[in-house]
Amino acid sequence: MDLTARTPAELSDRLTALRAEHQRLKGRGLRLDLTRGKPAAEQLALSSALLGLPGLDDHTAADGTDCRNYGGLRGLPELRATFAALLQVPAEQLVALGNSSLELMYECLVDAVLFGVVGGDAPWPREGRTAVLCPVPGYDRHFAICEKLGIDMIPVPMTHTGPDMDEVERLVADERVKGIWCVPKYSNPTAATYSAETVRRLAAMETAAPDFRIFWDNAYAVHQVAGVDEPLADILGLSVEHGHPDRVFVFGSTSKITAAGSGVAFFGSSPANVAWLLGHLAKRTIGPDKVNQLRHARLLPDAPAVHAHMARHAAVLQPKFELVDALLEKRLGGTGAASWTRPRGGYFVSLDVLDGCAARVVELAADAGVALTPAGATFPYGKDPRDRNIRLAPSYPDPDELRDAVEALTLCVELASVEHLLAAAGTPA
Amino acid sequence: MDLTARTPAELSDRLTALRAEHQRLKGRGLRLDLTRGKPAAEQLALSSALLGLPGLDDHTAADGTDCRNYGGLRGLPELRATFAALLQVPAEQLVALGNSSLELMYECLVDAVLFGVVGGDAPWPREGRTAVLCPVPGYDRHFAICEKLGIDMIPVPMTHTGPDMDEVERLVADERVKGIWCVPKYSNPTAATYSAETVRRLAAMETAAPDFRIFWDNAYAVHQVAGVDEPLADILGLSVEHGHPDRVFVFGSTSKITAAGSGVAFFGSSPANVAWLLGHLAKRTIGPDKVNQLRHARLLPDAPAVHAHMARHAAVLQPKFELVDALLEKRLGGTGAASWTRPRGGYFVSLDVLDGCAARVVELAADAGVALTPAGATFPYGKDPRDRNIRLAPSYPDPDELRDAVEALTLCVELASVEHLLAAAGTPA
Repeated sequence: MDLTARTPAELSDRLTALRAEHQRLKGRGLRLDLTRGKPAAEQLALSSALLGLPGLDDHTAADGTDCRNYGGLRGLPELRATFAALLQVPAEQLVALGNSSLELMYECLVDAVLFGVVGGDAPWPREGRTAVLCPVPGYDRHFAICEKLGIDMIPVPMTHTGPDMDEVERLVADERVKGIWCVPKYSNPTAATYSAETVRRLAAMETAAPDFRIFWDNAYAVHQVAGVDEPLADILGLSVEHGHPDRVFVFGSTSKITAAGSGVAFFGSSPANVAWLLGHLAKRTIGPDKVNQLRHARLLPDAPAVHAHMARHAAVLQPKFELVDALLEKRLGGTGAASWTRPRGGYFVSLDVLDGCAARVVELAADAGVALTPAGATFPYGKDPRDRNIRLAPSYPDPDELRDAVEALTLCVELASVEHLLAAAGTPA
Repeated sequence: MDLTARTPAELSDRLTALRAEHQRLKGRGLRLDLTRGKPAAEQLALSSALLGLPGLDDHTAADGTDCRNYGGLRGLPELRATFAALLQVPAEQLVALGNSSLELMYECLVDAVLFGVVGGDAPWPREGRTAVLCPVPGYDRHFAICEKLGIDMIPVPMTHTGPDMDEVERLVADERVKGIWCVPKYSNPTAATYSAETVRRLAAMETAAPDFRIFWDNAYAVHQVAGVDEPLADILGLSVEHGHPDRVFVFGSTSKITAAGSGVAFFGSSPANVAWLLGHLAKRTIGPDKVNQLRHARLLPDAPAVHAHMARHAAVLQPKFELVDALLEKRLGGTGAASWTRPRGGYFVSLDVLDGCAARVVELAADAGVALTPAGATFPYGKDPRDRNIRLAPSYPDPDELRDAVEALTLCVELASVEHLLAAAGTPA
């Protein structure tokens, strides 16, 4: 039944029942966590062979490099070849680096503010004089980098085909706007995949800033969970075609393919941009961990091996996504109190509750022992102007824990909604 | 015989003979390299067990952490405990991070110029308004970071007990001077170990800058090659004792203990400084490669295991150092044309030739197929004011190659010296 259509008296009765239920829930002493997109142990075990690889007699890359010694800033060619196909970057323009793609994004932005990027004539100015577009809801760690470096953030609404491109095209006419964050496939947190038209417009649009950059965090390039792959247009190729060859920085990693803390991260871009990044990195490091790259090349020798591997991840993840959807539907379906995504890939469910209720839901859940990503985390500066979005990360808990956590969550959503509707009706709770 | 005491006529005869010898050398078509301090394959093989570690059933740290998943910015406690003893840092103040200590040094300097350090009230200014002291000869990669970030470098002479401390104490009275690079043990390239008195003065000295930092790159903490360990005073303890607890950043790594590109780097400092670095790193990365740290903890479970391991490295390195010394002595001993160090640890021999001859020696060696570190590389901006220092790295070549390379080098030193002495005498060559 639609909560928003109930009378104040009905809501008051319901509130009493919900509060009693919440008290009983608190008594259960749950300690559950839906905050971060961490793989479950069952998923990590899919790559357990890495723990013994490359093996005692194997330390030589295809080109004869002894992976144990210094050097080789671009990473192993065989691993780059495999991921070039998956990340839609020519292998010679893709470099394989350390264990964190976040680190590479941070590095690119630090290099932009310290030294400037290809096509610009100066470092990116800070303190209010450079802004980056942030499709919202989005990824909190992207926003944290900008905030730390003193780069302004301008939110742009996400749609089911990607960011609102009319708004993006309008905003990039300001030369202060020098970039946009994108998680183009199974986006964090809405799971939307950018449409071909969105990708084309991003590649083709005219920007006032000559040194505009698209931070293309393709974190979930091969992470379908529903047995179908959502195609993503080739942004790098399109940017060349439309005369903006240096516009796009592509990022990827194996963090959610193999092991979350000990994978390999990738950077792909135009030849000029790759030279730019490596020129900076050469002063920072003598090279990445090539033995770990060799380990990955042995486990995942080609693109079909990666897809086969990801199908095994999907077999673990899909039931969890289905369980979340079923439990949300069971209690909140038809209530008018919530809407949520049904991801076909990625790691997250994006839950929208009634405006002004997200922080209260998170608080009620915390009281009951269920940790949720802080309300507002999916927006720049942690401020969701409508206080309605909550990111759910169902991957890490086992199914029983996940059931307990989402059942608790749905109670909290209903309780917060009733409180809110009563307050809006001027009825004391 | 002392070349500097020969008559012009004798030198001319000698020049003719040396040129003929150099011509014959060029005809041999050597392709040898003494440029970088890379471990030999024989040394890398000492850690070949890492290639199969931690093993298929082992991914759990002593505190129960699943090393395969995200998190744990400080690194594994058991590995930190082992290296705390070796790097003279309390374990709770030592963090274990990625594969490169150079990267940590770069990170600290970037954070200093972007955000400032503990004890300062602003970021370190750039473009001539911050300077760092550079004991010379020193490590080119340290200098490259400063040059890149626009931090001035002020050379300070190295002695056999460390940097000239009278000069250091004089220079730090300038508040523009905010740091000093130190490789305190088996220094790069002179192999000097700082005396207890030098370390005490560095810890105790008054600096005009309240946010002065010692970059203590203890790269060779356990890298003795001559069977005796040269003791190094505890700079962190001394800095606390003298009222400057936040003065020192300690860096270390296993790059020349286990595998050069796939080891573990460490940062140790005061609690406030560790919190400072981790606060910045937390925006950059979700955590280091803990599986690689576990691998290292399994190979090197405690400090005695590290010392035993390093004794095996010494058995490979010591004969190479002895060979270099013997060949230098054989041709250049008593000529007055060169002096060099006889390292008891570390990776380098520092060779001084006649003033004004180093670049010519490097050129003559290159002509003969022997690559040497560029003359001047051991000085800031690549400029050796006396053009006399050459860093030799004997670790990587096998003994036969090393013999060929050093014999070629000694010929080039003699040839360059004779050319130089003739020119100085006004005699056309």
